[in-house]
Amino acid sequence: MKLQIALDTLSLEECIILLEQTKGNVDIAEVGTPFIIEEGMRPVRELKKRFPEIEILADTKIMDAGELEASSAFKAGADIVTVLGVSNDETILGAIKAAKQHGGKIMIDMIAVKNLVERAKEIDAMGVDYICVHTAFDVQKSGKDPLDELKMINKVICNAKSAVAGGVKLSTIDEIVEEGAEIIVVGGAICNAENKSETAKEMKKHLQ
Amino acid sequence: MKLQIALDTLSLEECIILLEQTKGNVDIAEVGTPFIIEEGMRPVRELKKRFPEIEILADTKIMDAGELEASSAFKAGADIVTVLGVSNDETILGAIKAAKQHGGKIMIDMIAVKNLVERAKEIDAMGVDYICVHTAFDVQKSGKDPLDELKMINKVICNAKSAVAGGVKLSTIDEIVEEGAEIIVVGGAICNAENKSETAKEMKKHLQ
Repeated sequence: MKLQIALDTLSLEECIILLEQTKGNVDIAEVGTPFIIEEGMRPVRELKKRFPEIEILADTKIMDAGELEASSAFKAGADIVTVLGVSNDETILGAIKAAKQHGGKIMIDMIAVKNLVERAKEIDAMGVDYICVHTAFDVQKSGKDPLDELKMINKVICNAKSAVAGGVKLSTIDEIVEEGAEIIVVGGAICNAENKSETAKEMKKHLQ
Repeated sequence: MKLQIALDTLSLEECIILLEQTKGNVDIAEVGTPFIIEEGMRPVRELKKRFPEIEILADTKIMDAGELEASSAFKAGADIVTVLGVSNDETILGAIKAAKQHGGKIMIDMIAVKNLVERAKEIDAMGVDYICVHTAFDVQKSGKDPLDELKMINKVICNAKSAVAGGVKLSTIDEIVEEGAEIIVVGGAICNAENKSETAKEMKKHLQ
């Protein structure tokens, strides 16, 4: 199991400090969507250069122009690029093509997918690397969490590995670990923690 | 009717030249999603500074964190920000809140929305400025175009204005104009034209 840290609202300098502080416990550094909207691929380039031992995920949430947009992120140094599960099949297939060309991986973000089980089966058959259930930040307030959705997709996917995101914290990580996922994405629970280094270490301990 | 030019794959310098060449005929300059993925909000800032008389649309295709991500684009100088119609209602409402705070506008991109009429009604009731039917770049090869979808939403929206995007060219613009839309988005038909200035002028003429 890998621990992915979502870097959404920190500056590049703060991200670098955070990744230094959490070294050895973070497997994947996610350059989050708000960060990409603000700065483009600059943080992807910089983090890959400074932390070659950490996988870099570009949370591009691609919705169209799959091949073009995924290529752009892979060229910048991303190891994993995200595409939305609600996008057209052609977009996912285009991104997979780019991943093959660049030796990268595709994660499908299942945020706001209505027919989760059916769509997970379709996407699994396309040959993506990860399928990620994701409770949107904007709906976490309502108390939703992604565990039930993780259970649903774990039952039906055969080729891809599962990932889980959306409000994961120390108090909920054990049940996720028990259910099983290749990647667990944590954002605020580490980025907003008083002691980020200790929290990442503790989280990583629960994963093993 | 307004002519919006989608700037997806040109460099910032090429965009500036294009907007100089097409001055007076382009109402809205769209900083496209691939451009944002590459460069973040830098092109939005630069184009707003150089062309204060043109509206700038940031094609962020927001899927989550509506208030945060829309604010980021409005602060950079965007007049209009896009949010995906397939996103959760909370995300659209968050983006509307940001638009009100910053005096900006929200366009909902209906790309890959399955239940188009029903969703258009729901979104129209939320108080967005524009609802845009959009044939994905990745599916235009199959011969699809957005005219039928434009007809469908024009019948049901009462508050928002309609917009149309996806492969619009000189040979298809008249039937769109006849159907009616507040904004017509043109990308490749101008950006890849031999004489961009003449093509934009001709397109704009069809809009009046």
